Amino acid sequence: MKKAIKIVTIGGGSSYTPELIEGFIKRFEELPIKEIWLVDIEEGKEKLEIVGAMAQRMWDATPYEVKIHTTLNRQEALIDADFVTTQFRVGLLEARIKDERIPSVHGMLGQETNGAGGILKAFRTIPVIKHIIEDMKIYCPDAWLINFTNPSGIITEAVIKSFGWQKCIGLCNVPEISMMKEPEILGKKRAELTFRFAGLNHFHWHKIFDDEGTELTGKMISNINTKNNGTPANIYSAKFSLEMLKSMNLIPCGYHRYYYNAKEMLKHALEEFAEGGTRAEQMFEVESTLFALYKNPDLCTKPDQLEKRGGAYYSNAACDCISAIYNDKKLHMVVSTQNKGAIPCLDPKSIVEVSSIISASGAEPIAWGEMRSAERGWLQLMKAMEECTIQSAITGDYGMALEAFALNPLIESGEEAKAVLDELLVAHEKYLPQFRDKIIELKRMGIASKDSVVMDLMTNGR
Amino acid sequence: MKKAIKIVTIGGGSSYTPELIEGFIKRFEELPIKEIWLVDIEEGKEKLEIVGAMAQRMWDATPYEVKIHTTLNRQEALIDADFVTTQFRVGLLEARIKDERIPSVHGMLGQETNGAGGILKAFRTIPVIKHIIEDMKIYCPDAWLINFTNPSGIITEAVIKSFGWQKCIGLCNVPEISMMKEPEILGKKRAELTFRFAGLNHFHWHKIFDDEGTELTGKMISNINTKNNGTPANIYSAKFSLEMLKSMNLIPCGYHRYYYNAKEMLKHALEEFAEGGTRAEQMFEVESTLFALYKNPDLCTKPDQLEKRGGAYYSNAACDCISAIYNDKKLHMVVSTQNKGAIPCLDPKSIVEVSSIISASGAEPIAWGEMRSAERGWLQLMKAMEECTIQSAITGDYGMALEAFALNPLIESGEEAKAVLDELLVAHEKYLPQFRDKIIELKRMGIASKDSVVMDLMTNGR
Amino acid sequence: MKKAIKIVTIGGGSSYTPELIEGFIKRFEELPIKEIWLVDIEEGKEKLEIVGAMAQRMWDATPYEVKIHTTLNRQEALIDADFVTTQFRVGLLEARIKDERIPSVHGMLGQETNGAGGILKAFRTIPVIKHIIEDMKIYCPDAWLINFTNPSGIITEAVIKSFGWQKCIGLCNVPEISMMKEPEILGKKRAELTFRFAGLNHFHWHKIFDDEGTELTGKMISNINTKNNGTPANIYSAKFSLEMLKSMNLIPCGYHRYYYNAKEMLKHALEEFAEGGTRAEQMFEVESTLFALYKNPDLCTKPDQLEKRGGAYYSNAACDCISAIYNDKKLHMVVSTQNKGAIPCLDPKSIVEVSSIISASGAEPIAWGEMRSAERGWLQLMKAMEECTIQSAITGDYGMALEAFALNPLIESGEEAKAVLDELLVAHEKYLPQFRDKIIELKRMGIASKDSVVMDLMTNGR
Amino acid sequence: MKKAIKIVTIGGGSSYTPELIEGFIKRFEELPIKEIWLVDIEEGKEKLEIVGAMAQRMWDATPYEVKIHTTLNRQEALIDADFVTTQFRVGLLEARIKDERIPSVHGMLGQETNGAGGILKAFRTIPVIKHIIEDMKIYCPDAWLINFTNPSGIITEAVIKSFGWQKCIGLCNVPEISMMKEPEILGKKRAELTFRFAGLNHFHWHKIFDDEGTELTGKMISNINTKNNGTPANIYSAKFSLEMLKSMNLIPCGYHRYYYNAKEMLKHALEEFAEGGTRAEQMFEVESTLFALYKNPDLCTKPDQLEKRGGAYYSNAACDCISAIYNDKKLHMVVSTQNKGAIPCLDPKSIVEVSSIISASGAEPIAWGEMRSAERGWLQLMKAMEECTIQSAITGDYGMALEAFALNPLIESGEEAKAVLDELLVAHEKYLPQFRDKIIELKRMGIASKDSVVMDLMTNGR
Repeated sequence: MKKAIKIVTIGGGSSYTPELIEGFIKRFEELPIKEIWLVDIEEGKEKLEIVGAMAQRMWDATPYEVKIHTTLNRQEALIDADFVTTQFRVGLLEARIKDERIPSVHGMLGQETNGAGGILKAFRTIPVIKHIIEDMKIYCPDAWLINFTNPSGIITEAVIKSFGWQKCIGLCNVPEISMMKEPEILGKKRAELTFRFAGLNHFHWHKIFDDEGTELTGKMISNINTKNNGTPANIYSAKFSLEMLKSMNLIPCGYHRYYYNAKEMLKHALEEFAEGGTRAEQMFEVESTLFALYKNPDLCTKPDQLEKRGGAYYSNAACDCISAIYNDKKLHMVVSTQNKGAIPCLDPKSIVEVSSIISASGAEPIAWGEMRSAERGWLQLMKAMEECTIQSAITGDYGMALEAFALNPLIESGEEAKAVLDELLVAHEKYLPQFRDKIIELKRMGIASKDSVVMDLMTNGR
Repeated sequence: MKKAIKIVTIGGGSSYTPELIEGFIKRFEELPIKEIWLVDIEEGKEKLEIVGAMAQRMWDATPYEVKIHTTLNRQEALIDADFVTTQFRVGLLEARIKDERIPSVHGMLGQETNGAGGILKAFRTIPVIKHIIEDMKIYCPDAWLINFTNPSGIITEAVIKSFGWQKCIGLCNVPEISMMKEPEILGKKRAELTFRFAGLNHFHWHKIFDDEGTELTGKMISNINTKNNGTPANIYSAKFSLEMLKSMNLIPCGYHRYYYNAKEMLKHALEEFAEGGTRAEQMFEVESTLFALYKNPDLCTKPDQLEKRGGAYYSNAACDCISAIYNDKKLHMVVSTQNKGAIPCLDPKSIVEVSSIISASGAEPIAWGEMRSAERGWLQLMKAMEECTIQSAITGDYGMALEAFALNPLIESGEEAKAVLDELLVAHEKYLPQFRDKIIELKRMGIASKDSVVMDLMTNGR
Repeated sequence: MKKAIKIVTIGGGSSYTPELIEGFIKRFEELPIKEIWLVDIEEGKEKLEIVGAMAQRMWDATPYEVKIHTTLNRQEALIDADFVTTQFRVGLLEARIKDERIPSVHGMLGQETNGAGGILKAFRTIPVIKHIIEDMKIYCPDAWLINFTNPSGIITEAVIKSFGWQKCIGLCNVPEISMMKEPEILGKKRAELTFRFAGLNHFHWHKIFDDEGTELTGKMISNINTKNNGTPANIYSAKFSLEMLKSMNLIPCGYHRYYYNAKEMLKHALEEFAEGGTRAEQMFEVESTLFALYKNPDLCTKPDQLEKRGGAYYSNAACDCISAIYNDKKLHMVVSTQNKGAIPCLDPKSIVEVSSIISASGAEPIAWGEMRSAERGWLQLMKAMEECTIQSAITGDYGMALEAFALNPLIESGEEAKAVLDELLVAHEKYLPQFRDKIIELKRMGIASKDSVVMDLMTNGR
Repeated sequence: MKKAIKIVTIGGGSSYTPELIEGFIKRFEELPIKEIWLVDIEEGKEKLEIVGAMAQRMWDATPYEVKIHTTLNRQEALIDADFVTTQFRVGLLEARIKDERIPSVHGMLGQETNGAGGILKAFRTIPVIKHIIEDMKIYCPDAWLINFTNPSGIITEAVIKSFGWQKCIGLCNVPEISMMKEPEILGKKRAELTFRFAGLNHFHWHKIFDDEGTELTGKMISNINTKNNGTPANIYSAKFSLEMLKSMNLIPCGYHRYYYNAKEMLKHALEEFAEGGTRAEQMFEVESTLFALYKNPDLCTKPDQLEKRGGAYYSNAACDCISAIYNDKKLHMVVSTQNKGAIPCLDPKSIVEVSSIISASGAEPIAWGEMRSAERGWLQLMKAMEECTIQSAITGDYGMALEAFALNPLIESGEEAKAVLDELLVAHEKYLPQFRDKIIELKRMGIASKDSVVMDLMTNGR
């Protein structure tokens, strides 16, 4: 009989945690957990304790004996872990605010995982994930790392390809939501449909077939502008060009709007920013509300307000993935994993987000085959941009960071792009040890940290 | 509700047919067949009638209403077919005898699907399969072609890549038998194990994992020389080098002995030939016995003697594959299908034999990822040899045929190899229209058809 | 002894022709031409006659007997040609004006060979070059096609890959000018330096080495913003980021500014447009001046004013290339030719612009080797965009045209990009037979041809 | 002005050295050498002194002041070297005798650079070249390594790819001799012809064009069996199949006979062995004669008998290559260098033997483009075999050595192949530290070192 499971969640003080706990509770019969360690950092200690207590109450309200541990000592937590999940945010919500504000102020897209914001998020996260892997090699060399931390594909590539930890799967809720919403639009049950995804995290396409092998991709495309097939709530629903999609015969993901409708998306984002500030700032309020609820010692179920938090169904993805590994389920999931040739125009060693079979051996991608010219070009561009981001994040190569910015289709290249990079580096100084020398140089040149501005705004804006 | 199924079997007069019929009968509840058309050629008419009557009796003994049709008119049979299965042998058993005898006389391996014999079998079969595809494009453009005809991988590549028929799956019983035998050797149930195969038809390797993700490949290798893991009865069991297999950490297929133990295999084959003639000749007797049985109007179940015929479990593969398509099963099977990147060192358009998911959309390979140097080299060599074979089979390019011979590791290159090719071309003249000019030239040069010799032998030898 | 040479120049009525003639005159001793056929279309007849007479006078002023023929009958001209050069512009300067004006009006870059303008130029040119190749297959199957017509790389790819004419070399003066200017900047003679280029037409990088193998790339980068290394006069000299270039250690071409300094380049282009209209309109005046000069029956040498015309040294490239082929020179030139693996991240069959050896067998690229991530991504993106352009140009697939627009980094994707495409299609209706149905549909939807506006402007503006 | 050159020759005591010295003397005006260090090992000390004195006399008979140093201290010699040439043979001629005898005794091909002998030569040489590279990194980090040591391609791949020394070029006289002999056969001068080679060392093909771009490959093929185009004297001239070569339209190298005429070549080799022992044994006599001559204090020019030694024109290749680098000649040579995409079916990082341009920056391959199926398959197989050889040579992985043997087309796989490997390992024990544990195991199992037998034979046989 298999042993009971030890879960470790890095960034355990997140407001998401109750969602994750609920997911584990629902699956306890197939996924016999014995202990969950919530790990966080000093700055997040208070939240960690609130969430930890809430999580323990949730379990205590069930028939299952599961112990929640909270700790700031990651190494202690990792000892003999079976599954490590990551949902931390380096620099907390404040960092996201800067990622979104600074480009916006310059008239560029300020977005959490795409464009300049996504690159900087990777710059902050990669040094931290490197340390986590170093710890895992010592304390839990057989554990699976289930990565939620964004930009999920880039982080997963750094973990597997740069830091050599093979047992890692990157997750995202975007494909899952499509597979939940589209059957209804097509008048089918989910079980009757076969979904096949390929691409990169937040940059994938999919196809749909019914149980007679008939392709329904075109039918879904016809509905894509009128029926919500799961575009995350935070993405403005600019209309796709149906003529283009029909020529492609692929269903894009919601994030593709940034690339296929760049003008509308930027215009809308800047308007929104002018009106209400960044998405991240709006999150503050949601977060405050949630933590206020979590403090209630009588609350022992996930509050409805968490749904609004974004990232819904993340716990489905995480818990399903962990259970598929534990129970050798051969489950179809769309995850970030090593390409292995599934998308032949990318390096077999690259990380891609692709329809995979999840079993006790991890994720095995289903071979997608050759892409048409356009999608091939997009993927190769985006993967190159990701590679520059990772290399720069590891080495602190500033010229390479500029290359990542120039390649990124959501950043208009040139001097202003450089200015955005410089301000972001200075603003995130604390979390960017690899760029220390460059940041000192920038500060000497008078590049102001926008910290004070941002912090003021946050203080006042909440 | 899905419509009832029409099956067409090309080469329906084969002694295999009752096995196939039995497979369909067993699966009728999930695979509601309404009619089966057995197609054969004039020379096979008598056998066709015997087998057809036998097949009808088998159905009549069940509660199901299925009509067997026998015909020499392929086009009539193909109209609106749902599944077409091929099990024909161009030139009948006599041609196989020549494929096996002529190389053997020259001290080379005479084998049905490997070496010179396999190449010539492809030369005879490819022009015929081309016509079948032309007919299918007209009479049943939506049908699936389930190919059994050997060399199965080469024929499937010709069908999909050269003749442009995408809905084709090539089958072989070799992987199926391994998956039946190995669980017992490992002390496991089949359902507890995950098998992953990759390579080419009759040239693949596999790995095994248990339901905790632990790899059992090494354990199976340790047993490979002492316990039969499904090597076809017709292959001599030379001992693999365990040191080599352990370095590879891959389980070879039975046919790999021809490549890894070339000296022993050739020696044994020539001894066997010296004693009892070719394998093909031994088949004659089995065939006679079977048809004698089939003539018995009281027989309405598959006779036990058919098991000896070789090709056991072929019908499992065929019927399971058809049912997986019909019922959208997402079944793991090992089939010849388009690579699509699953084996990155081969062209995404090449046909490979690989662990796949069989659904209503056909076969989707599971990405295997990069091969080590040695296996990569072997596959690239064998695929090149297959490509030369196909190109030569289509164009009649004699120099290219010599290249296929030179590349083939089971043919010692040089003048004697050329002599073998020349004799085989002349011997199979009737079935090689593409080489007509060359054959005329060879005959003028005095290359004797070994027909008379072979036929004498067959007449006397039986 | 080799036979005397017949040259055919398609678009012979161009104001460039005297430059080309001068190039041939200078090289007559090594390149013994006997006749030059200048071919043009009905609309260009007047210019053709003026240029033809001028060209004959140029030869008559030399000791060489060379006959200039002018004709509107391309097929007659092509008979037994040795070299065919193309310098035609489908739709004349008026079409270029539309290519540049229409995007500019929408706030996008209006440029002859990059962005929307370059794609439309390909759309107009590819159907014409197809017909030229069809004629060449009949009338001069052994001739070399030396292509000047822009977008030179895309046209060369269509000629070689889509239309199957292998004996084609695409030329551009951009690399040639760099190799002329940079030695001086580096304080070296050209013969002391080795230049190595790789990339695509108008999108290549290069490296420089001295005669001891020391790389001077970094030194040239240090000078790139202060000394003109040959950026075409029509490209605004935005400052490159030296930090990025030093990280790359590659010297970009002048056109890279559109990609590395997108914001500044667009801003400048729109300002220029607001002030003085398009570049193409400015050309009208230059052209008028030139033809006025050419009419002078006493003029028998290339007038100085032609230098301003742009495209200087084009004739160097063309005549050097022809001579290198004729004389089997093994000359290093940078040309558009089949990749053959020289840039491993692109298809061996793709056309690239790369350092090559020009001999009697044509162009052989020097293998460049693997690119770093960023440059690999850029090239793969741009090649995909080129492929979509060519496929759309051949088939008239409108969705594919939208994909080319979306991929193109100089076009901000979205509804306005579509509007630009639509207006351009309607404006160029006469030259876009492949898009006829779509154009009719667009016109029905009220998309106005901007023809009248443009023509008015041209009439008034000159 | 460039500084005068320091040459270091590892294995300087070889009887080849006077040929190399002659080559340097002839080119002194373009290649101003100041000192040549001949390095050898203790066992070769006597020969080294003889050859060193001879070499100094050769220079002293010229007007040039060049100092010959002989030393057993490699590190001292390497200090500030400009060019290091390697011509050492690990284990001396005795080792070659074993490489050739042991397979022959088992009825397999015993050949210096192909088959089992070539693999074992690599096993012995790679650990030594590794140490040389380690020394060069310290004592002459800017030097070029010009490698003659066989198997030249494999050693060059180990140097560049495994040990990271980029400034290495591998040389062989086989292409050079073809380019010397074939012009005469074709009735042309060498300067009128363009040769293009691609493949691997001792496994390449070439094409020929005249100065009008006409291909003469087919004409050369027609003559290949009747006129000697430079097949090394030690290779038996079995007749190629002209039909196969014409289909290929490529001129094979002499060594291809082992692969295309395996049966004849093996038969002949075994006959020769039965009659006169191995090639290596025959070399003993030649060597003795040469050293007797070299001892003559009056001899100061290369004796004619050296021509018979084999390896003629090696010094041409070496001295031309060094001069082309020193003088930035852009010379066409066929060398082993990094692929960089020139042969697209092989890894850009692999070492190939290919037409290259030799300049101050080293070797740049000319892109060959895609291979046809057969040649692609051969190259991929051979490269995989080379990779297994190198990996096994570095790690001592015995299973991998068996894989190299199984892949090698000149070794019939199976138990006897293993026996040959085992005997060779034991026989070369002294030079195979990486296989020490396996060799101890083999000796315990009673695998006899054939040393005594071989040494007896050598003692008596000379």
